[in-house]
Amino acid sequence: MTEYNLDYHRLAANTIRGLTMDAVQKANIGHPGLPMGMADVAVVLWTQFLTHNPQDPHWFNRDRFVLSAGHGSMLLYSLLHLSGYDLPMAELMQFRQWGSQTPGHPEYGHTPGVETTTGPLGQGITNAIGMALAEKWLATKFNRPGFNLVDHYTYVIASDGDLMEGVSGEASSLAGHLGLGKLIVLYDDNKITIDGRTELTFTEDVLARYAAYGWYTDAVDGHEPLAVMAAIKRAQAVTDMPAIIACRTHIGYGSPHKQDTAKAHGEPLGVEEVALTKKNLQWPLEPLFYVADGVAEFMAGSGEAQTAWEALWRQYQAEYPEMAAEFNKHLHGELPANWDDMMPTFEVGQALATRASSGMVLNALAPHVPYLLGGSADLSGSNNTKLKEVAPLSPDDFSGRYIHFGVREHGMGGIMSGMALHGGVRPYGGTFLVFSDYMRGAIRLAAMMGLPVIYVFTHDSIGLGEDGPTHQPVEHLMSLRAIPNLTVIRPCDAVEVAEAWKVALENKTGPTALVLTRQGVPTLSHIQSQSTGSVAQGAYVIKQPVKPPQVLLIGTGSEVHIALEAEKLLGEQGVSAQVISMPSWELFAAQPAAYRHTVLPPDIQARVSIEAGVTLGWERYIGDAGKAVGLDRFGASAPYKTIYEKLGLTPTAVAAAALSLIR
Amino acid sequence: MTEYNLDYHRLAANTIRGLTMDAVQKANIGHPGLPMGMADVAVVLWTQFLTHNPQDPHWFNRDRFVLSAGHGSMLLYSLLHLSGYDLPMAELMQFRQWGSQTPGHPEYGHTPGVETTTGPLGQGITNAIGMALAEKWLATKFNRPGFNLVDHYTYVIASDGDLMEGVSGEASSLAGHLGLGKLIVLYDDNKITIDGRTELTFTEDVLARYAAYGWYTDAVDGHEPLAVMAAIKRAQAVTDMPAIIACRTHIGYGSPHKQDTAKAHGEPLGVEEVALTKKNLQWPLEPLFYVADGVAEFMAGSGEAQTAWEALWRQYQAEYPEMAAEFNKHLHGELPANWDDMMPTFEVGQALATRASSGMVLNALAPHVPYLLGGSADLSGSNNTKLKEVAPLSPDDFSGRYIHFGVREHGMGGIMSGMALHGGVRPYGGTFLVFSDYMRGAIRLAAMMGLPVIYVFTHDSIGLGEDGPTHQPVEHLMSLRAIPNLTVIRPCDAVEVAEAWKVALENKTGPTALVLTRQGVPTLSHIQSQSTGSVAQGAYVIKQPVKPPQVLLIGTGSEVHIALEAEKLLGEQGVSAQVISMPSWELFAAQPAAYRHTVLPPDIQARVSIEAGVTLGWERYIGDAGKAVGLDRFGASAPYKTIYEKLGLTPTAVAAAALSLIR
Repeated sequence: MTEYNLDYHRLAANTIRGLTMDAVQKANIGHPGLPMGMADVAVVLWTQFLTHNPQDPHWFNRDRFVLSAGHGSMLLYSLLHLSGYDLPMAELMQFRQWGSQTPGHPEYGHTPGVETTTGPLGQGITNAIGMALAEKWLATKFNRPGFNLVDHYTYVIASDGDLMEGVSGEASSLAGHLGLGKLIVLYDDNKITIDGRTELTFTEDVLARYAAYGWYTDAVDGHEPLAVMAAIKRAQAVTDMPAIIACRTHIGYGSPHKQDTAKAHGEPLGVEEVALTKKNLQWPLEPLFYVADGVAEFMAGSGEAQTAWEALWRQYQAEYPEMAAEFNKHLHGELPANWDDMMPTFEVGQALATRASSGMVLNALAPHVPYLLGGSADLSGSNNTKLKEVAPLSPDDFSGRYIHFGVREHGMGGIMSGMALHGGVRPYGGTFLVFSDYMRGAIRLAAMMGLPVIYVFTHDSIGLGEDGPTHQPVEHLMSLRAIPNLTVIRPCDAVEVAEAWKVALENKTGPTALVLTRQGVPTLSHIQSQSTGSVAQGAYVIKQPVKPPQVLLIGTGSEVHIALEAEKLLGEQGVSAQVISMPSWELFAAQPAAYRHTVLPPDIQARVSIEAGVTLGWERYIGDAGKAVGLDRFGASAPYKTIYEKLGLTPTAVAAAALSLIR
Repeated sequence: MTEYNLDYHRLAANTIRGLTMDAVQKANIGHPGLPMGMADVAVVLWTQFLTHNPQDPHWFNRDRFVLSAGHGSMLLYSLLHLSGYDLPMAELMQFRQWGSQTPGHPEYGHTPGVETTTGPLGQGITNAIGMALAEKWLATKFNRPGFNLVDHYTYVIASDGDLMEGVSGEASSLAGHLGLGKLIVLYDDNKITIDGRTELTFTEDVLARYAAYGWYTDAVDGHEPLAVMAAIKRAQAVTDMPAIIACRTHIGYGSPHKQDTAKAHGEPLGVEEVALTKKNLQWPLEPLFYVADGVAEFMAGSGEAQTAWEALWRQYQAEYPEMAAEFNKHLHGELPANWDDMMPTFEVGQALATRASSGMVLNALAPHVPYLLGGSADLSGSNNTKLKEVAPLSPDDFSGRYIHFGVREHGMGGIMSGMALHGGVRPYGGTFLVFSDYMRGAIRLAAMMGLPVIYVFTHDSIGLGEDGPTHQPVEHLMSLRAIPNLTVIRPCDAVEVAEAWKVALENKTGPTALVLTRQGVPTLSHIQSQSTGSVAQGAYVIKQPVKPPQVLLIGTGSEVHIALEAEKLLGEQGVSAQVISMPSWELFAAQPAAYRHTVLPPDIQARVSIEAGVTLGWERYIGDAGKAVGLDRFGASAPYKTIYEKLGLTPTAVAAAALSLIR
């Protein structure tokens, strides 16, 4: 490495500070403090370490850079602009405006070079851990002597807030356990949060905590470029542990009145203070959005590394054609053509929990979808997420294909998103449905980013029985349906489970939640229903009456069987009922009206829904005249059949509700 | 202390093991491992340290005992039964059965002596931190020389899972910061989780992590009673730090084939293995549910401490009558009679964010509700939760009355619940509405336990503007409404805010979420509306048309103002609209039908709802013929008025929807 040019360094860092102050001031809202404080660290990282190609933000082997403290978005936008990404100055001038590429917090898929959507604290660093995990797994699988096909760092800038959030603690503990040696976190140790100095509430020894997690730790003056450089080099030299470097910085660096205060964090400095700061930094007051001469050249990324990697890739293809084909399959997430041949067969009438059939389907598919990489938050046996005859991924053996996430649901969610963002793997992860609450922060961002992750949520109702109300989801199905771009599927039996997995794997534009029973449910004969629809349509007629229907019974998951029993009871009384299985509201809503009307004929207004959860929302499908049989209270601890009976979720209750509508 | 009788200790511990094995075996489901492993530790704690009175589980100055690892419920039930609580053996024999007092996980309010509902990992230890915080705050406020009126320990049994969860990390960091010296955590260090040995995923140095948080740490053989006793004494001697004692135990202690394996964790040992275990422990195979002679006496709690405390309390009342009256006020949560006199007055027409009016109301009430103790998750200024001229609660000064929770939403939620469980304080806590996701695990349990906590959720929609979709709640209102026993209130202006705080403080049977704007909204004239209803009724007519209404416009929060603008537009076209403000679905649903029908006349089916969130659920109030104007997508980063405009949440859109229904 040639000698580092400190003059250009200073110009680059001050350019970032100037762009930040001006953009925030122009928008009259934003967060100047972090970009100004971390500019020195970021310039060192981006000029001396970050291997990337601004001309091709999607180059697979690039280093990943995550600004976990997403509120400091102007730092990232400045870096992207200066190093040559397709983010023109005009966009920086439109910071936080409608339609600009510079929203308040960085948004994945919206701005070139943004690796993940950040802002909600703790999520970015957790995503980064998922990226580093994916890197190491792919490297272990595909690299060959002389061919480091997958070989990149994951860098993070994280704030005090990021490290206070529990989600980052969960993920960092796992990262330490797994020894993710190519993850380097630059901690913006500025002693300030929104409420004031960190001593108000955050006096723990952060580095000692990270050392306890098994991380390499270091501390450095974040305004000494050469010291930062040396620290990053030391961190790179430690290959068996993730690294965290506390960079002591001054928030709002350069501002005479606001540096080192919470005032610098989340509001414009003010026109006067901007002027004073520029003066203090010996920076021209005009023009606004000033970029000093030579800074663009100094910061410019190049395509060299990618060119070299592409040469390596060509050689690899020649040397290892089969592995190369496999690698491509991983990168593009190619799905097998002959789904149905792979699926296990299920015996009609056999009682099987949908979590169990899910496990069977997953195991049948896994050999054909080799990039499927998942695990469970310490409920492997209960979630049936385990792959048979597959070793767990461990610190000593990254060829394993099963992740013991630990009792860390939120961390799991964020790591899964990071894996998906990295690419080359397709993540899934299991926990109880009730604990989807713990990971909603991660689920929401996965939905917003359109990440193809698969959540396996088992023990989906009071049907889990004796564990009681703390473990019985009641409001969760509807709460998940409320999240835009999340596909929720609650299959009623093994056949629907197989279809649900197919739909989940084919859904590449957003997360899918599979919602599964603990208790056994009989496998139905779907011969009739398959003519009219299936899981992919979201809802379909699973039992068509001989006579024209007088009433519609709509069920999901295990309650479809209650609806079918109710249909029999009604039949005995001469009432003709059409039973609808509705595994997915989102998929059904996406169908053409003509199809929806065959399933729910508009002229039949006598409709009863049955679902072991809150009734809120069911009016959408049962209408003003309908009745919702559900559970607008928490559950209870008892054998599950007793709970269903005591809380009125029975065929008799459904039949009675139906009769009340038509008589 | 007299010499500890190790013979009785052994009998007591084995009695607990026997009761556990038998109860789990009889139910044929449950978790024998933890009670068998932690029996020794628990017997030492309950006989040598725990100050309580089984005859009066509500005695205020009792030590609090939290079984954070709630799956080990048979440990707690055994302890309660043996020490003399009103939990007869017949209840233990009905473990996990409908209607029994021994549900799968301990439930607060259901079983005498259960201090909090546990099961979802990490919550119990977090509640305990809230209890210890409340204890220290009350002690600081009320204790006088010679009068330690509030003076008790909070003990916790926590598992690996508890300590892996992020929520416990957040809360533990705060506990260390605050130096909660009377909190003692007994960590069941058994090296086993559901998936297998902790080395699979949990290899961090837990005690080093806790030392980094500022805790006193210790480790001990959990099967050596005298060593455990000595360790607890050492922990008690450290008065300025919380303590964690790693108790090395063997899960399923005594089971020849399952001890130290995950098989002992969450399923019955099996009849044969139970027999082998009893033999191994030299325990009679019969009768089942055997209690050895003398164990009840050995374990029995006494009323002595309470009697002594009551004498102290009488003296205190004599010596400090005013403080005693104040203490009673704290204990009973007495509310002032003259609400309306205290409330600030608001100028009609003035634009004021509801978060701002909330801050004004809170500050007006706080002097009159002196046990109100809250804070914010590092958003004090944004949430307007700060009490003016009040010092923050700090490690050095617990007379402070404002809690800087840090960027720890989930921890805050669990701590608030613990404070409410402790009693003597009324907790509130603020964050952005979008981050209610982070704390749902705690919110749900607060709702289940019926705890009177108050959540202050600000920045409640796209109305927060430039921060963009990561910070803009969309699905959150409906997701919170889905939680049973949570009252959600979204006031439309300052007047409704004042009423909302009153309703929240008067709600003592469950949590209340106040949902508030970032942006200014005009204060309305409520002269007309007050004759027909107010926030306490959940919804009311805020604008009654002169002519009989043709259409109903239903809004919540800031969107009420859009509905009112739409009403004007419709009026210009000769259409008569009735505008309804619906701040709370839960409160409205609790009204008699007659009232509901005056607000939403059944014969008017042309109804439009307007809310800046998902439309899911609105069918309940707008019916089949209605239209919901809402937001079934994530938001965007821009000035808020632009977002409302671009996403179609405008008076024009509402008026158009209304017209489409009647023309």
